[in-house]
Formats: sequence, C-alpha cells, structure tokens
Amino acid sequence: MKPLEILEGFSSLNRGEKQRVAAERTDDPATFKTVLDAFRNQAYGEILDQFSENTVSHYPLPYGLIPNVRVNGRLFLVPAVTEESSVIAAASGAAKFWARNGGFQARVTGMIKEGQVFFRWQGEPEHLQMIFDKVQPALIQSLKPFVERMEHRGGGIRKIELIHAPDILKDCYQLSVKAETADAMGANWINSLLEELAIQWKKKVAAERPTIVPDIIMSILSNYTPESRIKVSANCPVSAFEQPGGTFTAEEIAERLVAATRIAREDPYRAVTHNKGIYNGIDAVALATGNDFRAIEACGHAWACRDGKYRGLTETKVESGIFRISLEVPFAAGTTGGLTTLHPLAAQSMKLLGSPSASELMEIMASVGLASNFAAMKSLVTGGIQKGHMKMHLKNLLLKHGATSDEQQRADVYFRSHPVTDRNVYEFLVTLRTAR
Amino acid sequence: MKPLEILEGFSSLNRGEKQRVAAERTDDPATFKTVLDAFRNQAYGEILDQFSENTVSHYPLPYGLIPNVRVNGRLFLVPAVTEESSVIAAASGAAKFWARNGGFQARVTGMIKEGQVFFRWQGEPEHLQMIFDKVQPALIQSLKPFVERMEHRGGGIRKIELIHAPDILKDCYQLSVKAETADAMGANWINSLLEELAIQWKKKVAAERPTIVPDIIMSILSNYTPESRIKVSANCPVSAFEQPGGTFTAEEIAERLVAATRIAREDPYRAVTHNKGIYNGIDAVALATGNDFRAIEACGHAWACRDGKYRGLTETKVESGIFRISLEVPFAAGTTGGLTTLHPLAAQSMKLLGSPSASELMEIMASVGLASNFAAMKSLVTGGIQKGHMKMHLKNLLLKHGATSDEQQRADVYFRSHPVTDRNVYEFLVTLRTAR
Repeated sequence: MKPLEILEGFSSLNRGEKQRVAAERTDDPATFKTVLDAFRNQAYGEILDQFSENTVSHYPLPYGLIPNVRVNGRLFLVPAVTEESSVIAAASGAAKFWARNGGFQARVTGMIKEGQVFFRWQGEPEHLQMIFDKVQPALIQSLKPFVERMEHRGGGIRKIELIHAPDILKDCYQLSVKAETADAMGANWINSLLEELAIQWKKKVAAERPTIVPDIIMSILSNYTPESRIKVSANCPVSAFEQPGGTFTAEEIAERLVAATRIAREDPYRAVTHNKGIYNGIDAVALATGNDFRAIEACGHAWACRDGKYRGLTETKVESGIFRISLEVPFAAGTTGGLTTLHPLAAQSMKLLGSPSASELMEIMASVGLASNFAAMKSLVTGGIQKGHMKMHLKNLLLKHGATSDEQQRADVYFRSHPVTDRNVYEFLVTLRTAR
Repeated sequence: MKPLEILEGFSSLNRGEKQRVAAERTDDPATFKTVLDAFRNQAYGEILDQFSENTVSHYPLPYGLIPNVRVNGRLFLVPAVTEESSVIAAASGAAKFWARNGGFQARVTGMIKEGQVFFRWQGEPEHLQMIFDKVQPALIQSLKPFVERMEHRGGGIRKIELIHAPDILKDCYQLSVKAETADAMGANWINSLLEELAIQWKKKVAAERPTIVPDIIMSILSNYTPESRIKVSANCPVSAFEQPGGTFTAEEIAERLVAATRIAREDPYRAVTHNKGIYNGIDAVALATGNDFRAIEACGHAWACRDGKYRGLTETKVESGIFRISLEVPFAAGTTGGLTTLHPLAAQSMKLLGSPSASELMEIMASVGLASNFAAMKSLVTGGIQKGHMKMHLKNLLLKHGATSDEQQRADVYFRSHPVTDRNVYEFLVTLRTAR
C-alpha cells in the first residue's frame, strides 16, 4: 500500500489510471481491479460514467418490483430500488392487502416550487418595497425568454415576493419566487431563472436608486416544497384485519395500529424510524425512476417538524368499524428531464408505470411510502419485525458463507429454533460440512 | 399492453417470469427485457438478487472517487456513489482546498444507539417503577446470552430506563435502551435484543404483580441517535480564499460564506437545501460502503430541528483573520455486517478506506458532507452554481442526443454564450449535422 499524498490532476486521468491509483491504496490491488471491472456495466457504461465525475465503476442495487399497488383505482407494478432486505416484500404484502380493500386514494394538492434570491440593500425598506412594486411587471417581462418554453408546457412563474429579513442579517432581503415546472423536477431551470432574476433585479434597482446597489448573496432553489404535497389515504372495515389463528382480534389489531401511530406522532425517537419506514418506500421508487432522494428526504423531514416538534407523518383512526390510514407528505419529483430520461433503466421504469405525469408519479411514490409504513407498523404491533427480518438475515449469512441450496434448506429448518447469528450460521455450516 | 389485475403468487415466480409479467405491461416488451437483461450483473447477480425481493435486474449508479479528503491528518481517496452531476467534482475541489489547509478535524462524540419497548400497564406508575428497580439486574442478566458476543466486541447494553408516557397514550410506558454495537450498524442485533427484553420484562412484571400484565405494543430500535454524533471542523487563513482576477476579495468571500451560513441557520427554506448539500456527500459514501442512507437522513434532519426550528447544520465564523467552518451531525454507520460485507463493491470501498472502524468511517463521511456543503456555499456566494451545473447539464443533453466527441467540442464553445436548454442543444446539433 502506498502512503497517500495530495493528488494533483486526478480528474484528468483516464478511468484506467484512476482505478490504478485507487487499487494501489488497497492491500490487494488485483482483486480491487477485478471487482471494479466486473461491476462496470458494459452495455451502457459510457452513459452511466457521465452522470457523475471520476467514475471508475458502477454500483448496482437490486431493481425489484412491488406488485398490486392500486392508486386511484389503477393497479401498478412498481419498480423499486433498495439495498434493504424486506422492504419490497413488506410493501408488496401491504399493497396487496390494500388493493383488495379499494386501494390508495392519492391526490397532489399543489406543484409549487420555491426559489430564493438573497441580497443586502442599505436603503430604507419602504423605498425598496416601492421600487419592487413599480418594477415587478418589467422584471417579469425581462424573464420572458427564460420562461416561454416552460409556460408552453404548463409551468412558469407563479409569484414573486419581496421579503425583508433583518432578523437574519442586517439589510437582508429575499426575492421569493414561486414557480411550477410541469413534469420536470426543474432544478436547473429554476436555478438559471433565479440567477437571471438576480441580474435583472440588480439593474432595475440601480436604475431607480443609483447610489445604493443590491449586493446579491446567492440565488438558489429550495427543496422545501410545502406547496407541493401529496395526500394518500386508504380505508377498510376493521374486520379485514381478521387473522385466523392470530394472537390478536381484528379490533385489537386496529386499535394497536392507532396506538402505534399516536406514539410516532408524539415521540420523536419513534417518529424518526416511523418516517424512515415511509421513505424506505418513497426513495426506492425515486431511485428506480431517476429522482433525487436527498431532495425528497430533506423536504419531508423538515416538514415533519413544521409545528416545532418532529412527528410521524401518518395518521390513523377507527370510526364506525372502519379503519382509516392517511399520509401527507411534501416533495417534488419529475418524469422528464435529467436522469429520468437519461438512465436507461429509469426510462424503462417510466414505461412500466405507463409514462405517468409528475403528479401521477408522486401519487404512486407516496402510496408506496404508505404501504411500506403500514407494513412495518402492522408487523411491529402484531408480533415484531424480527421474525421476517431474521429470515432475510439468515439468507444473507448463508450467502456470505457460500451455502449450497441443500445447505440452505437444512439451515431453514435448524434456525427455526436457534438464534440467527453470524457465528451460529458459520458453525452450523462447518458442522454440516465436516459430518459429510 | 395488458390491463392489470391483482397478481397472485408474484413472489413465487422465477426471475424470468417476473420480468415477462412486467414487460407485458409496457408498450415495448422486447426493449424492456433487453434493457433489464443488459443491466443484470453477470458476475455477482445471484448475490445482488438476494439483498432484496422480486429482483429482476440491477440498478447501477456511478461509483466515483473523491481524492484528497484529509481527515485527522490522514489522506483518503473516498469512494462515492451518486446519480447527481457535480457532487463528486465539487466535493473533490473542496477536499483539495482543505487538504492544503490542514484538512478536516473530525471526532465522534459517542456511539450510543437507542431502542424502545413501548407497552401499556394499568397499575400505579409508582409500583411499576418499584418493580423495575427491583428486577432490573435480573432483567439484564436474562439478556446475557444475547449480549455476550457483542460485549466481546466492545459493545453491549449501556442503560435501561423506564419512562412513563401518559401524555402519549393512557397507561403508556417505554423501556428505553441505550446500547453500543461496536463496528456494526447493529439494527438486527438491537431489534432482537428488544424483542427478547420485552418477553423477559413481561414475565418479570407478571411475577411481581400477577393480576396486571404489561401489554407490549412494539419493540424497535430508533434511528434517532443524538448520542452518536460527529463533529467536523476545518480552518484556514482568510487569505487562502484569494482568487487572482476574482470578483471578490478573500475577506469578502469569507464574509459572504458567514452570511450564507447564517441565512441557512435562520431560514428553513434555505436550510433544507443547505442540509441537502451536506447529505449529497454523506449519502454518496453511505451508498458506496453499504450503509443505509434513509436512517442517516431521518436522524440528521430530525436533529436539525431539535430546538423547534429547522436549521442548517453548518457553522462558520471569522476571527483574527482565520475562517472556521464546522458541522455537527448525528448518525450511525457500520463497517461490518450486512451489506458492508456482503456487497462486493462495498467491501472494496472499505479496503480503499483502509478498513476503517465504524467511528473512523463516520468521521470520513461527515468530512465529505462538510466538503460537499462548503463547495456548494462557496460557489453560490461567488457567482452562482449554474455555471458548473450547466456544463454538466450540457454534457448530459449532448449525450442524450448522441453527440459525437467533435460535436461535443463545438457545443462547448457555442454554449459559452447561449442558454443551455434541451431544445437549443437539439437545434444546435441538427444545424451542425445539416450543414455538413
């Protein structure tokens, strides 16, 4: 292994050279190179490389399918990408249960995105407001070349406001822009628009008050989109929870789900993992469709604490024998532009979903989030999640120790009554193999 | 395209059958199948399939390298997986800047994870507390078989508390468990431990008060880990920001970075995207090392609003000519067990990082998060991010329209002075091709 020193010009090296530099820093360069090469996608390597920088291989995650996701009456077979075991199995189970009970009702309540131009201006706030009111039409006019095509597609600027923010910083203001971007996520479009807006605004203020020039601090979209929200709900007769031979009655299961939801709303420690379960589903579809899960996560979790306390995003209730579950979650996703079109597998995901509009995709994503959350809660309140998880865990451990399919079958029987730990699995296999 | 109906037994189909069912729901089944097959990893397909369920292909993301990440004096070449353009380039630029200025100082301030057993009990709270105090040693003793091996590795139970939570739910309590899990993320271990704790607790309470039995609602780890936090900081002389021919002086750049940080701390719309930039870096390393980014995201964003307002996680200041930036962020990551070991590329990532301990990996991840955030802020306050982004955007659009490398070079020149939009790129290429 070579000791590291500051590397110069790394980004200009070709892929093979980058790999070599990295390999030399491991204790087994040959294996490093072999593994990286084996993971490099041959058919679409050039395309994948260019999504990012310094790409030396491609990191694959399982691309799976969640059947029976019924959203607003339509049934979807939903593509989902996750590294976490049980997520797809659990969401599939819940989706099927709800598909039999009318499915998910989902509705996007808005598609407004926001952008911000922060700046400082050292004159009187009232004067700036006057200038803003006066120049606003011309300001919007000056952005025409940028918005024309977006307006054609149904998007465009919806509102520009001047906000004085002296509490944040002396002489600080923002232009807050609300916009819609049709079926695109639209981050590039909004950012370009804001940078142009900043330039035009500076000019127009200078024309009105030449002695005081706005100092633009930054122009950037916000991924916080409380006005781009999705509501999903589902309901079923409590009796649908009946499990012949189960530990709990249908009424008890419904009541326990309500209790679990209430705990997640009131206890932040619980809320975090409760919501994590929602995003297990949402992010898996985001990945499969080329959407940006960091934007989706940041938005939703910030919204989860909008009243000052971090809360679970689901609500449940039982009324007149009907169990009702709902989820409200803000985020923005796109079905055109960026990776959604460029990644060949994301493009096929869109086809599998019937080439949805952005709002339809958001409804599907939120439904899968609710399915994922419902599955986790139900298994938690009716006997724990470890039984299912441990089955997966066993599978992974057997895999790691190279178990044959015969050994896997024997292990399945043995570990029904023995704790699944790495050591136990290893010892079980050694014993089995020695006994032969 | 076949209309969908509820699918029965989907999970029992083999991979080819699952693919076929999906393909039939698209308008071009042959292409769907070809793309899915091309993306299926040949060398490690069986392993990847089993991480999740209903796997029909593998979704690859660029696996790239961030050079020159100096953490506590050591230089790392950090593997990172992201679909977002500019993230790796920007983090690389920032990492190199800081590597030349002493690098990142990072420190894990704790490794405590928490788990919860929620239950109802209808007796007097004081009596339950008495029972808890009395049986606690025996309770811990009863968990010995579960914790012995973890204790050997340096982990184990650190504390069990009884918490009365009548505000959440009538007669509601929790056993709150604090534990350490050494270099493993340890989710399975904690969940198994909690389920066993619930069983033992129920037994022991029943022995003390046979008439009132605890009703266990659920036993589950929390991904909220405020006691598993990482602090990263870096500092440099303000003069290090000097840019010959730049728009701003070094002092102005430093001051603008401080202003930008302050805005992100005080304005939630800005905070969301500010923190999103941090997680662009952290999640990329999480993915490359087989860690669970949903857990990391949920934890950090909930922590960002711990005082009731959602805030940016970075702090900056200038003192006596020294610029200082710091980030404090809670999360838990592992370097052994689960995907970190099973995913062949994640295993190579660990080798490239010198087989770090969990806390060392967490320090590297947080450092990349800070690099990512610093890069975004710096480019925002010194001229906007769109210049760099648009270069990437142009690359992607050229790619989409199948530009040759000659066409790419001509486009690079042309689009220095023309807006980069899909239509413009398309028209540019058509004009070029017609002119030939």
